Amino acid sequence: MNHAVLLLIDVQQGFDDPKWGIRNNPDAEANMELLLKHWRAQGWPIIHIQHHSTEADSPLRPDQAGNAFEEFAEPIEGEAIFTKTVNSAFIGNDLEQYLRQHNFIDLVIVGLTTDHCVSTSTRMAGNLGFNVQLVGDACATFNRKDLDGNEINAEEIHRIHLSSLHGEFCSVVSTKDLC
Amino acid sequence: MNHAVLLLIDVQQGFDDPKWGIRNNPDAEANMELLLKHWRAQGWPIIHIQHHSTEADSPLRPDQAGNAFEEFAEPIEGEAIFTKTVNSAFIGNDLEQYLRQHNFIDLVIVGLTTDHCVSTSTRMAGNLGFNVQLVGDACATFNRKDLDGNEINAEEIHRIHLSSLHGEFCSVVSTKDLC
Repeated sequence: MNHAVLLLIDVQQGFDDPKWGIRNNPDAEANMELLLKHWRAQGWPIIHIQHHSTEADSPLRPDQAGNAFEEFAEPIEGEAIFTKTVNSAFIGNDLEQYLRQHNFIDLVIVGLTTDHCVSTSTRMAGNLGFNVQLVGDACATFNRKDLDGNEINAEEIHRIHLSSLHGEFCSVVSTKDLC
Repeated sequence: MNHAVLLLIDVQQGFDDPKWGIRNNPDAEANMELLLKHWRAQGWPIIHIQHHSTEADSPLRPDQAGNAFEEFAEPIEGEAIFTKTVNSAFIGNDLEQYLRQHNFIDLVIVGLTTDHCVSTSTRMAGNLGFNVQLVGDACATFNRKDLDGNEINAEEIHRIHLSSLHGEFCSVVSTKDLC
């Protein structure tokens, strides 16, 4: 059995753009970096998922500077990169085949955003039979509007989405649990 | 172009079991029934998704009475049924191929539960390129505990999940919008 893969989802500079609005968990990047350094120090497997947006105004488009990984999360030799154009890390690429070929069963997921790409990728990973630990304090999301136009706090969105995922699709853990 | 398919997710008697706890939106079934009758009256396509749980204590197991469809949602001749054992209606069966073979692009989704099977199926449908309308008032979910053990109200879970889905994976609409 291989060691759990650290799967970093959309840790890209485009999410620093003010267009996304108010975010929760400013410590998310520091926690991702701790996990990444820990995984590298142990020689454990690491996979980076990079979003190639097809939206006209997204800073995550491949032709935009924001498509680049955050500096601390820049992949190094031996780390796999898979790209995607939708929320799920498992649609439109060979991630699932790659994991199965390498006999990777256990995944540790971190990244952005909790309720969009992280949630969708965690759900599909769990439903495809992978064993997922989702690191809640190494994820974050942004304020959104509800259907009546009321602002919803990012921390509340984050809390409720983690609660819906935990025990059904994954186990939600903390950075401290893993380092 | 074919008319939008009405996709009913897990409208099964097992969700009436008290084990699930407090639910929101007691009108969900009446709205599902309105939509189902409308679709049947127009001769539009209808697909039923039936959950075959593999959990030891689930009332939705195939060997349990709760696996049966709700009476009002019992499929009739000409309506397709796909079964699943996980949350996503698109994993472990031929639903995607069936939709593509029949040139069904537009989906109208209703069912249970908003934040588990409905959300997961809506996310995958949108990410696979289908055009999804999710009928918010024809879905429902149950109270859950957050990671600190605090009870979260089903209506709040429902509201926040619909907000995260709307505009990203689907359009959230009402029964009245469609009937």
